[in-house]
Amino acid sequence: MRFDRRITCLAVTAAFLVAAGATSGETPSASPADAGDFEVLPASLVERAATLRPLALADTRAWDFLAGLTTEVGPRFAGSDGDRRAVVWAQEALRRLGFANVRAEEVMVPRWIRGVAGGRITAPWPQPVELVALGGSVGTPEEGIEAEVVEVGGLEELDGLEVAAVAGKIVFINQRMRRARDGSGYGETVPIRGRGASRAAAKGAVAVVIRSVGTDDNRLGHTGAMRYQEGVRKIPAAALSNPDADVLAAQVATGEPVRFRLLLGCRTLEDVPSASVLGEIVGRQRPDEVVLLACHLDSWDLGTGAVDDGAGCAIVTLAAKLISELGPPRRTIRVFLAANEEFGLSGARAYGERYADAMGLHVAGMESDFGAGRVWSMRSRVAEGALPVARDLARLLEPLGIEYGGNEAWGGADLRPLRAPRVPLFDLRQDGTHYFDLHHTANDTLDKVDPEALAQNVAAYAVAALVAAEVDGPLGPAPAFPERRR
Amino acid sequence: MRFDRRITCLAVTAAFLVAAGATSGETPSASPADAGDFEVLPASLVERAATLRPLALADTRAWDFLAGLTTEVGPRFAGSDGDRRAVVWAQEALRRLGFANVRAEEVMVPRWIRGVAGGRITAPWPQPVELVALGGSVGTPEEGIEAEVVEVGGLEELDGLEVAAVAGKIVFINQRMRRARDGSGYGETVPIRGRGASRAAAKGAVAVVIRSVGTDDNRLGHTGAMRYQEGVRKIPAAALSNPDADVLAAQVATGEPVRFRLLLGCRTLEDVPSASVLGEIVGRQRPDEVVLLACHLDSWDLGTGAVDDGAGCAIVTLAAKLISELGPPRRTIRVFLAANEEFGLSGARAYGERYADAMGLHVAGMESDFGAGRVWSMRSRVAEGALPVARDLARLLEPLGIEYGGNEAWGGADLRPLRAPRVPLFDLRQDGTHYFDLHHTANDTLDKVDPEALAQNVAAYAVAALVAAEVDGPLGPAPAFPERRR
Repeated sequence: MRFDRRITCLAVTAAFLVAAGATSGETPSASPADAGDFEVLPASLVERAATLRPLALADTRAWDFLAGLTTEVGPRFAGSDGDRRAVVWAQEALRRLGFANVRAEEVMVPRWIRGVAGGRITAPWPQPVELVALGGSVGTPEEGIEAEVVEVGGLEELDGLEVAAVAGKIVFINQRMRRARDGSGYGETVPIRGRGASRAAAKGAVAVVIRSVGTDDNRLGHTGAMRYQEGVRKIPAAALSNPDADVLAAQVATGEPVRFRLLLGCRTLEDVPSASVLGEIVGRQRPDEVVLLACHLDSWDLGTGAVDDGAGCAIVTLAAKLISELGPPRRTIRVFLAANEEFGLSGARAYGERYADAMGLHVAGMESDFGAGRVWSMRSRVAEGALPVARDLARLLEPLGIEYGGNEAWGGADLRPLRAPRVPLFDLRQDGTHYFDLHHTANDTLDKVDPEALAQNVAAYAVAALVAAEVDGPLGPAPAFPERRR
Repeated sequence: MRFDRRITCLAVTAAFLVAAGATSGETPSASPADAGDFEVLPASLVERAATLRPLALADTRAWDFLAGLTTEVGPRFAGSDGDRRAVVWAQEALRRLGFANVRAEEVMVPRWIRGVAGGRITAPWPQPVELVALGGSVGTPEEGIEAEVVEVGGLEELDGLEVAAVAGKIVFINQRMRRARDGSGYGETVPIRGRGASRAAAKGAVAVVIRSVGTDDNRLGHTGAMRYQEGVRKIPAAALSNPDADVLAAQVATGEPVRFRLLLGCRTLEDVPSASVLGEIVGRQRPDEVVLLACHLDSWDLGTGAVDDGAGCAIVTLAAKLISELGPPRRTIRVFLAANEEFGLSGARAYGERYADAMGLHVAGMESDFGAGRVWSMRSRVAEGALPVARDLARLLEPLGIEYGGNEAWGGADLRPLRAPRVPLFDLRQDGTHYFDLHHTANDTLDKVDPEALAQNVAAYAVAALVAAEVDGPLGPAPAFPERRR
């Protein structure tokens, strides 16, 4: 209820700002409303986008959405009670914001239970350590597993070991993630999380503990999905926080044999229903054509999912809402708050099946799922003939401090169903320098979100979605993805 | 063993640097060795201090000491197994470094067991929260305590409430600690931790949860000692992490009644033996006169006590060691690694009793127990006639970036027995801007320590202890403490 009142109050503020033609908060730049700079976009659209930007920057409803979701729902891991409450909460939030066709599209999701987690170096110098189970891990026996530790620097080193060096041991994969604005350190280390257990089990290991895939120095492990390879024994898998990995490595470095005890209470139950939540701003001229704005509604269980991906849902929802407040766009803008991105892409898969025949009506897709940092780059994935539109969009984003990054947009995990049908995509790339300090940890909470950066994201999505929803010619078909990226 | 080898290797390096007259690493400044700038210190002492500074800045043995303690012992809460191992470890470390009269002075300490801790908002919007028990808290019943929450902004607001508003409820004391270089925000909020439970119980509360006394935004509660007032019912007391306090406050702010469930497995057992560890660099002329360098060997149980107070022990130990390597000082330098500072000052009290008759032979005391940040200020507490010595010492510290802060030194908690006998004190004040991000949390680990800042501390203590051990005239009696500070 409190949430509702704030929304109403702020909508009034927004209306006032439109009337006043407010432009405060923009990064100074060449006038973006000078239609002479634009290749193809009509002056009316350029002007509308220029009106939208400062409105979005001054609007605080994305913050209110995010505060509401994290306060009134909090953790919402697929299949959990929080997940079910999030589906109800999100539908109510979209309805209150005036979205049309608000609905929950049911999908079955796996039901993994974390249970207890404990770790302890037992020799030569006993110490408790902080760790978290990786998502999907099997549990240990109730008394835990204790074994000698064998440390490796990565998967290749593990693969190179003899079975005799690994059999019966706990493998410690100790590779530190590199910090980078574009998050490229994640791709380098996340295979350890996903595949480490089976690669260790293939050599006879009894469990695996990895250095967390994360860039922080907090005593909070980073969870995330892991997967067992078929035909390989399933062994428990956990992630040590960076400081705990340091201690374990320091003990191993002495040359003394190091023993470790791991206790995980994980178990997997029967699949349960969850749902993606969708809502629409119905187009005024071509309501069947859809601009898809995606995020994911589920979160990991350790934090309140403020950054991953409550922020994304707040951003795309309020971007669509702000567009609608200037009058309905030509095409429909659909927000897609996907179910269970984190633990199997359930919502994305279901969307692909349900809307398989309607992919031709998807004129563009974009997803916000890289935290709450400022957008610094826009990438498109449009037909060559539509590159002038992409360049014009880039000009409209320039005053927000966003540069154009070429035509190789990726789209986001929940937009995978749009790839094969070659739906045009836009990436609004966020600064991920600090994203992996929080990613998949208990520290993913509201206080980590900068309200100004959040509003800048809303502005960027609003402008990009407006252009995609209004532009005259077709944006696609998008260039096909190279085989390796599918 | 590994630790031992490193020490030996680095001692050789230090000897080489003496021979080479190395001065690298100093902050550029007016030549500190120009005896003309000094009021009372003889040129030979000024020169010796000037030799010591760069040696200390280049020395890494304080780091090795700290890495050894945190790797080979780790958490060492008073009366725990880690505490016992720390006493053994510290004696071995002092002996290997060549200290004389190395000994453990036994003292009985309370034995408080933390046990499990869990918290959960149960209504209106259920969410798990992170919290830690405060040290000394009683436990809850096995099924926990669930009650409605009443929030207050501080102890005064709590005292102002009617019993009817508090009775049967869980009091949430929500005051955020202020960040400051000198740590002055701690004094403002720590009474909430120490006295909150009894003040709430006096109004009929069934439990108290406080916003952690800490400046960070991690999901890690800050523990620390609390004390029950005699004659008031003992109720369980816990500290929420800052982000969790935010969530609880946000739910309370909606005006909906908020309910909370607290589970604490704390209990207090019989007192057990622990020990302070001492070692000496015996004076060449006045071996009975003592310069006391203090720290505390115990830590809280949640982290490895790298910053609080492993760093302090590393600093004072290596400062004394470096002085000895230039030849024994005139007076004895005694390092005092106090037992159980955190949960009752047991070692300090015992020291005061054991050495009550020898206080007149204590020529000066200084303690390192404010983390591992750089020293930025030196305060003295010496007789007026010795102020020229304090000013000369300040000149010797200037090249380390340290300013003189006047004659009102405090001394440190483990030096309290030195106050009434008016033993001269020196405070080498560390930058505490980030100290309370880690203080009493699981995050107090080795990776938080900057090796260069640690070495700067060693240099500062070495210079100050050298001057106190060599200076001709008496430094005391120190000005008496004002009544309120005793």
